[in-house]
Amino acid sequence: MSTEAIYFDHNATTALDARVLEAMLPYLRGQQGNPTSRHSFGRTARQAIDLAREQVAAAVGAHPSQVTFTSGGTEANNTAIKGIAATHTPAQLVCSAIEHPAVSKPMQSLLGRGWKMARTPVDQDGKVDLAALETLLQQKTALVSVMLANNETGVLQDIPAIAALARRHGALLHTDAVQALGKVAVDFTASGANAMSLSGHKIHGPQGVGALILDKRVDLQPLLEGGGQEKGLRSGTENIAAIVGFGMACELATRDLERHAEKIRGLRDQFEQGLVELGATVFGHGAERLPNTSFFALPNIEGETLVMALDRQGYAVASGSACSSDSIEPSHVLLAMGIAPEVARGAVRVSLGARNSAAQVDALLQALRNEQLRMKRMAAVAV
Amino acid sequence: MSTEAIYFDHNATTALDARVLEAMLPYLRGQQGNPTSRHSFGRTARQAIDLAREQVAAAVGAHPSQVTFTSGGTEANNTAIKGIAATHTPAQLVCSAIEHPAVSKPMQSLLGRGWKMARTPVDQDGKVDLAALETLLQQKTALVSVMLANNETGVLQDIPAIAALARRHGALLHTDAVQALGKVAVDFTASGANAMSLSGHKIHGPQGVGALILDKRVDLQPLLEGGGQEKGLRSGTENIAAIVGFGMACELATRDLERHAEKIRGLRDQFEQGLVELGATVFGHGAERLPNTSFFALPNIEGETLVMALDRQGYAVASGSACSSDSIEPSHVLLAMGIAPEVARGAVRVSLGARNSAAQVDALLQALRNEQLRMKRMAAVAV
Repeated sequence: MSTEAIYFDHNATTALDARVLEAMLPYLRGQQGNPTSRHSFGRTARQAIDLAREQVAAAVGAHPSQVTFTSGGTEANNTAIKGIAATHTPAQLVCSAIEHPAVSKPMQSLLGRGWKMARTPVDQDGKVDLAALETLLQQKTALVSVMLANNETGVLQDIPAIAALARRHGALLHTDAVQALGKVAVDFTASGANAMSLSGHKIHGPQGVGALILDKRVDLQPLLEGGGQEKGLRSGTENIAAIVGFGMACELATRDLERHAEKIRGLRDQFEQGLVELGATVFGHGAERLPNTSFFALPNIEGETLVMALDRQGYAVASGSACSSDSIEPSHVLLAMGIAPEVARGAVRVSLGARNSAAQVDALLQALRNEQLRMKRMAAVAV
Repeated sequence: MSTEAIYFDHNATTALDARVLEAMLPYLRGQQGNPTSRHSFGRTARQAIDLAREQVAAAVGAHPSQVTFTSGGTEANNTAIKGIAATHTPAQLVCSAIEHPAVSKPMQSLLGRGWKMARTPVDQDGKVDLAALETLLQQKTALVSVMLANNETGVLQDIPAIAALARRHGALLHTDAVQALGKVAVDFTASGANAMSLSGHKIHGPQGVGALILDKRVDLQPLLEGGGQEKGLRSGTENIAAIVGFGMACELATRDLERHAEKIRGLRDQFEQGLVELGATVFGHGAERLPNTSFFALPNIEGETLVMALDRQGYAVASGSACSSDSIEPSHVLLAMGIAPEVARGAVRVSLGARNSAAQVDALLQALRNEQLRMKRMAAVAV
């Protein structure tokens, strides 16, 4: 890794906060206990997990008893979807057309066992079409899953309205809040959702840890079964250091939220003003969005090409979702928004963090300008 | 946690090796990339995972392509069992009567969907009865799961013989090698097993990471679906620091294996000689065992009581399995070995590590002697 490279890919993963690492280190040094063990080492580990559970709950307006620690957002999503399906009579599952594969794939894997699946459409800005969702809910539906914030566009959904719709039709609502946490206020209770997925490494916390928040209405068959940890909802020896770090990251993210969001929004607006001058299209521009995400396309430049050109110049950005495996298909999120495939192929995502600066954003804009000029010259030569 | 307490519970969890933490720290400091990302940060992360995969493969006689990283042993076991069941026609599943719940519970959860489950018995030393297994395999069987080393007794199974039996009857063999790794030589290819589970935190590696080793005969439906990481077998952003640490821990465990095992076996023999003088029963004594584990009972002392008394005196030991949730049921492992419940209730496990010393073992024996005397005095007073 070039030490000079500037990181604009915070929706993919974030740097571990030094204060989080500091909180973790005591649990990475010296003898630690298994929290299930009934000796002093075990009790110390158990207390650390209890504190972290309170920190996570406080960050998302939940009760500590509603927090189940998982190995990350993907496990939380899979546990919610497969676990709820396992305790319900086969019916319909609904997710939005712009869900992360960690939601849509577990749903797909249930097909053919009596389960049906529908994708509720979004409008041109990427917002879920509530009328279309209501029509889908005429069919008996066990579970609806709609993400709070989209990982590519940053577009936010009206989860309370969707939760009310789901409740009225007897369906549970799960929301993947992995991208929202730490960037906008997240309130599990106020959202009306029955289940919510969170992840540590998107909020300057550790990788390999996340949580599933569940209200008492949810009857769930655990995905990982064994020793009965996490009240039987998630077996496996607890990852103490990561859980402690996740708790601390949640506390810091909540404490710094407004200050960071204001700074990041300023950088984002600065960046998008520059983008407009370059003739870029910014996807989801008309919708309420995360303050840190710009998903855009420059005319006549393929997104992959641009990502690689910027990488060579020391700027780390993403094309489409960094969480999907290698693929040159245009973003399914943009296609669902009705963007033409040839435009979607140009998509590049810049996702900012609190450590980015106005100077870095200016430098990135300059790099984009240079790249645009270079492409024009090449096109001229080709003609 | 009392800083003076002496730790004799290495089968529950182990201290992170300082060299492992050293290897992890670069991935816990500064900006790291998501390994899926196509920029310099992502490539660096990818390379770190590739190296760790080679280290893990080398430690267990497997090819790197056979290694799928998971969040730990429980996830590896659940993935193997549920994942193999999902790609097979319902038939019989067989596990030994002494399996960890992370194997037996996933099997149980499949019952009622056309799957049957049988537990193959063990003899009085805790060894799988091969003749009984062969009888069970007359029924069409998709999968057999037998642990390499038992977590409570340390008793080792003849996996090559069990693999040959399974193969002859058209069944796949999975082995939970979580407790064996780092304590005895483990060779996936030579074992004949089709699938093997490993865990980091039992070998002085980090918590929250493990691996499922799979040969090419195994067709598996992934448990965690989403972004398609780990060749689609285990989705979710890779836990880079933990994977790096696991790789290093595997390398160190293999390198130090013979030296550590010899030292630990010496301590174990010293301990068990003292136990015999106290009139203790050592479970599985007649079988080939891990060099570090003594599972024993003193006459007329309840195991739970002894664990708590030793804890107060600064010795951390376990009663039954530390991985199961709170329960006063006698060990299912001992009951399967035909031990009477009243004897099994006395069971205490001492599991040694390379940092334990002869002086610590002597001190523990003295504490046991004192406790035995104290109990006798109390009994005399009660009379």
